[in-house]
Amino acid sequence: MGQPAEATWIMKPFRAVAYARRHQPRFVAELKEFVRFPSVSNDPKHARDVRRCASWLAAHLRLIGLENVRVVPTSRHPIVYATWRHARGRPTILIYGHYDVQPPEPLSEWHTPPFEPVERDNNLYGRGACDDKGQLFTHVKALESYLKTERALPVNVKCIFEGEEELGGSPGLERFVLRNRNALRADAAVMSDTRMLGPGHPAIGYSQRGNLRFELEVRGPRQDLHSGNFGGAVHNPLQALCEIIASMHDAEGHVAIPGFYANVREWSAKEREYMKRTGAKDAEILRDAGVSKPWGEAGFSLYERITIRPALTLNGIAGGYQGSGIKTVIPARALAKLSIRIVPDQSPQEIEQLLREHVARVTPPTVDAKVRTLAISNPALVNRNHPALRAAAVAYRKGFGSWPVFLRSGGSVPAASIFQKALATPTVLMGFALPDDHVHAPNEKFHLANFFRGIETSIWYLATAASLRDVRREPKLQKQWNV
Amino acid sequence: MGQPAEATWIMKPFRAVAYARRHQPRFVAELKEFVRFPSVSNDPKHARDVRRCASWLAAHLRLIGLENVRVVPTSRHPIVYATWRHARGRPTILIYGHYDVQPPEPLSEWHTPPFEPVERDNNLYGRGACDDKGQLFTHVKALESYLKTERALPVNVKCIFEGEEELGGSPGLERFVLRNRNALRADAAVMSDTRMLGPGHPAIGYSQRGNLRFELEVRGPRQDLHSGNFGGAVHNPLQALCEIIASMHDAEGHVAIPGFYANVREWSAKEREYMKRTGAKDAEILRDAGVSKPWGEAGFSLYERITIRPALTLNGIAGGYQGSGIKTVIPARALAKLSIRIVPDQSPQEIEQLLREHVARVTPPTVDAKVRTLAISNPALVNRNHPALRAAAVAYRKGFGSWPVFLRSGGSVPAASIFQKALATPTVLMGFALPDDHVHAPNEKFHLANFFRGIETSIWYLATAASLRDVRREPKLQKQWNV
Repeated sequence: MGQPAEATWIMKPFRAVAYARRHQPRFVAELKEFVRFPSVSNDPKHARDVRRCASWLAAHLRLIGLENVRVVPTSRHPIVYATWRHARGRPTILIYGHYDVQPPEPLSEWHTPPFEPVERDNNLYGRGACDDKGQLFTHVKALESYLKTERALPVNVKCIFEGEEELGGSPGLERFVLRNRNALRADAAVMSDTRMLGPGHPAIGYSQRGNLRFELEVRGPRQDLHSGNFGGAVHNPLQALCEIIASMHDAEGHVAIPGFYANVREWSAKEREYMKRTGAKDAEILRDAGVSKPWGEAGFSLYERITIRPALTLNGIAGGYQGSGIKTVIPARALAKLSIRIVPDQSPQEIEQLLREHVARVTPPTVDAKVRTLAISNPALVNRNHPALRAAAVAYRKGFGSWPVFLRSGGSVPAASIFQKALATPTVLMGFALPDDHVHAPNEKFHLANFFRGIETSIWYLATAASLRDVRREPKLQKQWNV
Repeated sequence: MGQPAEATWIMKPFRAVAYARRHQPRFVAELKEFVRFPSVSNDPKHARDVRRCASWLAAHLRLIGLENVRVVPTSRHPIVYATWRHARGRPTILIYGHYDVQPPEPLSEWHTPPFEPVERDNNLYGRGACDDKGQLFTHVKALESYLKTERALPVNVKCIFEGEEELGGSPGLERFVLRNRNALRADAAVMSDTRMLGPGHPAIGYSQRGNLRFELEVRGPRQDLHSGNFGGAVHNPLQALCEIIASMHDAEGHVAIPGFYANVREWSAKEREYMKRTGAKDAEILRDAGVSKPWGEAGFSLYERITIRPALTLNGIAGGYQGSGIKTVIPARALAKLSIRIVPDQSPQEIEQLLREHVARVTPPTVDAKVRTLAISNPALVNRNHPALRAAAVAYRKGFGSWPVFLRSGGSVPAASIFQKALATPTVLMGFALPDDHVHAPNEKFHLANFFRGIETSIWYLATAASLRDVRREPKLQKQWNV
C-alpha cells in the first residue's frame, strides 16, 4: 500500500505535533513521576498511594488546561474526572484510562525496583509504565500539546481516569457511569490499554474477552495437622483443591466444566480468515510467551484460542507451608485464585453458575469447598465499520506511519463494556503496548518510541474525530475495511 | 489389671522423685526459658537462634552435673553432647532429643505468640513446648534429680540433643553417629518425641514410618504472563502442577503411583488384632484431627492407615499470586512440597525412583517438571520383647500409675533408624505428648502434668535400666507382653 494522499478534511495539528516533539524529554520525566506512585489498587496497604496518585494526576490535568477537574470518591479508589467542552457543534470524545497498577510481586524477579522507573534501551521500566500509566499519559500529553499551541481542542473531551481497573470489573467506574449517564454522553470513547502486533504494527482492538474472577477455598481439619500423625487418614484440603482444579480441564486442554462451551459463538470462515490474516501467528505468540510448545484447544490457532475461545486460568494457590525446606503439615485450608475469560455469547451469570455446580459436584464429602465471586465483566465487541474506529485508523497512519490492523484482544477492559452498556458509546481500543512489554509481570516496560508516537496518534485522533461523519469518505480506509 | 506387687530388683529412686516434685515450679520456669529460643532449624534467618539455644542447653547440662559437655558443630546446626560414665558395670543408655522446632507459621492462628510461652489450664503453650523441648527436658530434669540427690546415676548415660530433626532425616546426626560409632555404643537408646493414647494412657512406640521429602517444581513460560493475553494458548505450570498432584491419588484414597504398594508388609491377623485392642479408635483419631469424615484406604482402620500403611502428603504449594484480591497472571513456575511416609518393607530409594518415574510419565510435554529430594529416613521397628522396652513399661507404671500399651507411630524419628542402623542399638520411644498437643501446628502445648509425670517416668527408667537383664523376670510384664 503506497503513501496515501493527504486527506483534505482533517484539521491538521502540525503545531501540536511540533510541541509534542519538542517536549519529549519533559514528558518522560513527568511519566516517571507518575510511575513512581505505587498505586496498587488491590492491596489495602497501598490505598493512600492510590489516593496520592489520583491527586497528582488531577493537579496535572489542571496544569495542562483541562477544566472541571475533580477527584470523585468511590467506595474504594477515586475517579479522576476532567472536561473541555468549548468545541461547540463538534463531537464529544470520552478519554478513558486507569492510573492503578497490578501488584509488583514477585519482587525478586525485577531487575530494578518496580516503583523506581528507569530508562534502558529506549524503554521505560517500572510497574504501570505501560499498563496503563504510560498509555493513559499519551492522551494527557496530546491534550496538553493542543491546548498549549491552539488554546483549544478540536473536539469536546471528557476524561475518566479510574483507580480500580486492576481490581477487576471496575466496580466504582460502573456506579459512577450509571449515576452520571447524561453528563457522560459522548460520540465515542477511546482508551489505550491494549497491545500492538509489534513495533511499527499498530492495531485497533474491536473485541475483548470478559473476565470472571473467583476464589476457591477448600477446608478440612479444624487446624493444621502433623502429616506423620494423620497422613493417610484425613483428606488433605490442599490435595483436594488440586484434584478439584485438575477436574476443570481435560487432557486436551478443553475446559471440562459441563456446558461451558454451550453458548460460545461460532465465527464464519470469512471472519476466521480475516483473523488469520491480521492476527498474531502461532510462532509469534509462543515467542512472546517464552514457551516452546502450544497448549489448548485443537482446531483453533493460538490467536483464536486467546480471543474467540474462552479460557479458565489458575492465577494462584496458597496452601500449607511455603517457606524454605519442608514442614510436614496437613494444612487446614487451601485457597485458589481463578479467572475465567468469557467470549460472546457466554453469559457471566451462567458461567458463574456452571462453575459453582461443577465444584459442588466434584468436591468429595471429606472436605468443604466454597466459591467466592470477586468480579465480573462482560465481553465486548465493537463494529469494525464504526467511524470512530475509522478515525483511529487514520490517526495511527499519521502517528506510526502504518495503517493499523483490527485485532481481537484476549484481555478484558471492563470500561469498554460499561460504556457500551450504560452509555451506548462504542469504544476505540487504541493500544500502544508491545507484546514484550511484560504487562502484569516483572520488568514491565513501555517502549518510549511508542510513547512519543502514541502522543502524536492521540493528537491526530482528536483532529480526525472532529469530523467523524467525514471519516467514512476517506478512500484509503475503504480498502482497509474490505473484509 | 490390679495394682502389681512392687518389683524387688529395682533400686528405688525415692529421693530423686521427691526432689523432682519439690522443684516443679522451677522446672517449668526453666522450660519456658528453653522454649523462648526461636530455634527454627529450617529457616536460615533463625540459624543464630538455633546456636544460642544449643549453648543454653549445653550450659544447663553442665549446671546439673553432666560431664564432657560439648556443642559439636555439624554442617548446619550443632549437636549438644554430654555424658556421665561412672556407673561401672552397669548398662549405658543413650538419651536423645532435639532442641530445634518447626516453623510457627501461620502466625495469625496462634492465640499467644509462639515464642512467648504461657501457662494456661495446666498446659504450657509455645512452639516446641511439646515437640521436642518439653519432652527432651523431662530426661534432663530426671538426670538432675538423680545427680542432685544421689550424686550418681544408676546407669551410664550419653546425651545427644540435635538441632536438625525438623529438617527431616537428621543429616548432621547421621554423620555424627557414623563418625563416633565406638564412643556412642550403648545398650539402649531412649527418646521422648511421640504421643500417648490420651491423658493417663501411656504408650511406648515400637514402630515408626520413614519419611521422604520432596520438592516438585513445574516450569512453563520464561516469566509470568498476563492471563488475558495468553490464557488458553499456554499451559499454566500451576495448573499442570495440580494435575500432576491429582494423578498421585485415586478416588478411593490410594496412592496411584504404580508399584507404590508392592513391598508394603502384610501383617498377621494376630498383629492387627493387637493393634485394634491397643491403638486409637477411628472416632478418637477423627476427633483429634478435627474432621468429621475419614479418608484413605478402605479395609484398614484409621490407626492402621497412619501406621502400617504408607501415605503421600502434599505439605504446601506456592505458585502465582497469593495476595489479597486477584492478579490475572499465568505464573512462570509453581512449587509443591511433598512428603511420603513409608513403612516396612518399602525401600526409600525405590519409592523415590517410583515417584520420579511417575512424575516424568504424567508430566505433559508443554511444561517441565523437576523432583528434588530433600531428605530421606527409613521406617523403624523395635521388637516389643526387648528388655529396654520392658524397662520402659515398668517406668511408665511408676510415673503414670498405668501400664503403657505398645503403639505404632505414624510419624518418623530418623534418630531411631540411625541408632538402629549405625549402632545396632534399639530405641525406646517413650513419648509424653498428648494427641491434642497441636504438634507442628499453631497453639502447640505441653500438658504440665505430663511434664512432671514424664520426669518421674524418666527417673524410674534410669533406675530400671540399671538391671536390664532382670527386667525379663518381672511377672506383671509377662502378662503385658502376651501378644
